[in-house]
Amino acid sequence: MKGNVIVGQSGGPTAAINSSLAGVYRTAKDRGAKKVYGMLYGIQGLLDERYLDLSQYITNDLDAELLKRTPAAFLGSCRYKLPEIHENQDVYKKIFSILDKLEIEAFIYIGGNDSMDTIKKLSDYAIVTGYPARFIGCPKTIDNDLALTDHTPGYGSAAKYIGTSVKEIIRDGYCLEYENGLVTIVEIMGRNAGWLTGSSALAKGEDCEGPDLIYLPELPFDLDQFLSRVKKLLEKKSSVVIAISEGIKLKDGRYVCELGTSVDFVDAFGHKQLSGTASYLSNFIAGEIGCKTRAIELSTLQRAASHSASRVDILEAYQVGGAAVKAADEGDTGKMVVIDRFSDDPYQSGTEVKDVHKIANDEKLVPREWVTKDGTYVTDEFINYVRPLIQGDVSPVMVDGIPRHLFRPI
Amino acid sequence: MKGNVIVGQSGGPTAAINSSLAGVYRTAKDRGAKKVYGMLYGIQGLLDERYLDLSQYITNDLDAELLKRTPAAFLGSCRYKLPEIHENQDVYKKIFSILDKLEIEAFIYIGGNDSMDTIKKLSDYAIVTGYPARFIGCPKTIDNDLALTDHTPGYGSAAKYIGTSVKEIIRDGYCLEYENGLVTIVEIMGRNAGWLTGSSALAKGEDCEGPDLIYLPELPFDLDQFLSRVKKLLEKKSSVVIAISEGIKLKDGRYVCELGTSVDFVDAFGHKQLSGTASYLSNFIAGEIGCKTRAIELSTLQRAASHSASRVDILEAYQVGGAAVKAADEGDTGKMVVIDRFSDDPYQSGTEVKDVHKIANDEKLVPREWVTKDGTYVTDEFINYVRPLIQGDVSPVMVDGIPRHLFRPI
Repeated sequence: MKGNVIVGQSGGPTAAINSSLAGVYRTAKDRGAKKVYGMLYGIQGLLDERYLDLSQYITNDLDAELLKRTPAAFLGSCRYKLPEIHENQDVYKKIFSILDKLEIEAFIYIGGNDSMDTIKKLSDYAIVTGYPARFIGCPKTIDNDLALTDHTPGYGSAAKYIGTSVKEIIRDGYCLEYENGLVTIVEIMGRNAGWLTGSSALAKGEDCEGPDLIYLPELPFDLDQFLSRVKKLLEKKSSVVIAISEGIKLKDGRYVCELGTSVDFVDAFGHKQLSGTASYLSNFIAGEIGCKTRAIELSTLQRAASHSASRVDILEAYQVGGAAVKAADEGDTGKMVVIDRFSDDPYQSGTEVKDVHKIANDEKLVPREWVTKDGTYVTDEFINYVRPLIQGDVSPVMVDGIPRHLFRPI
Repeated sequence: MKGNVIVGQSGGPTAAINSSLAGVYRTAKDRGAKKVYGMLYGIQGLLDERYLDLSQYITNDLDAELLKRTPAAFLGSCRYKLPEIHENQDVYKKIFSILDKLEIEAFIYIGGNDSMDTIKKLSDYAIVTGYPARFIGCPKTIDNDLALTDHTPGYGSAAKYIGTSVKEIIRDGYCLEYENGLVTIVEIMGRNAGWLTGSSALAKGEDCEGPDLIYLPELPFDLDQFLSRVKKLLEKKSSVVIAISEGIKLKDGRYVCELGTSVDFVDAFGHKQLSGTASYLSNFIAGEIGCKTRAIELSTLQRAASHSASRVDILEAYQVGGAAVKAADEGDTGKMVVIDRFSDDPYQSGTEVKDVHKIANDEKLVPREWVTKDGTYVTDEFINYVRPLIQGDVSPVMVDGIPRHLFRPI
């Protein structure tokens, strides 16, 4: 490389997104980039000319290792959607004048499907205007809902945390005996895709029966069937644990959480902000059955738990960061790095690049055949798919009993 | 020892209570106990003659290691309060006839202040009736509210999880910029004692500013002052993280969570069941300030997170289990094992036994001088107290990417 690289982070944070940032930095430096800039708060911050020189923060190999183990987005993130090119060329002119000033040769954006929309538009604009920089997307989302890639970095660590925590919750549920039993409802992220909620099945093993029911957002949720299934389970066992997606909906399209409280807030991408599904269902069950209930939201914890990250995930996140820079350096643009799985056991994977136009704004859902017929659990295929992605641990750098992170003063 | 030992677990589960169980088993066996029985679901289960022979579950050293790493209560627990001896002698006659049948020489009960009430009453009854068995309490509670002991097993692991998770939440809070800022309220267990909530300050370090405000239940909570403090913080920073105890109350004695919804359920010990404090305050702040808010309850996770247990805690839990058996074997009764701290740095501790009459039903609160004058943070003394208790890790036995536990089929 002869010019400079700029990298940004976009969308919801994960435990692995900073590992991709470390990978981008390392490969850019290895390939001779003079400067590696980090845009602050994604493309939105770049529009305000907010960026930094990453070499001031990653000063040695220890910093890079800490960065790989730091949750959330080191550079800050955004949920900013670029206008269509024909609607507002000024935004594009501004961005490209900044890139020009910074002598950017490669623009790497780490994010999910909304963020790939940004890569698509910027690379289109560059091609149309003859601007020479290359634009490459680097996959990231705990939701695992990106098309054309076997899975996304960030998913494995979240799945490992969910499997571990749900197992600990199941264990806890058997401590105390309640007259009419205990029903625990665990709410897991995933608005439309059930990849995370399905990973609660990882709790299942020789030493644990796993959650009793799993409800993904891909299938309509039926309150009456749910109630009768819970009643039946309580006839056989004293503690029932149910994993549900925050985004489960009734047949008529209403979110279950909307049954309890009205939630009208909608974000910039038109997504409804959800919360309280577990809370609604646990009140519903308590009222109908008279048993003890608990609602547990894994909330922010599930995407920020670097302390229990998956080694496969952190390494793959690092690799896709490097692969993005390599692709840009070799002349690709308008592409996203994807992960190919060569085999399940032993698990082997590699990277290639695919056209971002086929990825942006698309959502990969859990296939119907990976959910049981009655819609209350995931199949063995699902578990065999996710199991390799949670393998291995990344030992946190413990300082005084607490994991150390790489710190950017704000 | 010539006779048998029986051990029970009582009260809320922790990540360390099974390590005490392993300690009891090991020392009882080492001292020649023929049988080590485990009562199922504490004294309540024993009254129904529900117990097991622990040697059928702990068959080798690996089982013992797994048990030390298994959260929740392996034997099951209860919240059963024995009647006063003069009120109902039948209960006592029944218990002692079972102990007699099982040839029990030492009765070990692992629990908190309510559980020590059980040890007090049983040892009193044994002395009065001339029954030769010895009754020893083994401290356990994440709440750390037991009198006469420097701290309680279970507290260190919960504190480590809270410090780690709050740090991850703080990091996550800086990812996205919201127009009017983001306020995250983290709700932590502790009905009357703020030991757990105060441990959120462990997130503070060279790489993290820690939570911005910490509210313990020991001091009255003032909504107006809270609001003005949050407003002031939002003038200076974009993300504010506040740790609150589930049990914070207004000056007039009402729980903050009662302001939102009415919670009337009261458990057998007269404790109100609380929930929703963070949820109430985050709605309050959103309404008053118009900023983005989040409510995060660490819920069951904070007491069950064996995957991030403290090594000091797990080892001390094991030691107090052994010390309880030793005390009984040496003739003590009506005592609880306590932990003495000899020095902070290097941390050194040991065990002795103290009269359970001085411990039962008492609650050790956070001293006023360990909270800052304005009541919104803990002092350095508090942090220096808890810091040694979270040191070191206990590597989970990972099988297929998930921690393995010792399993008792139910």
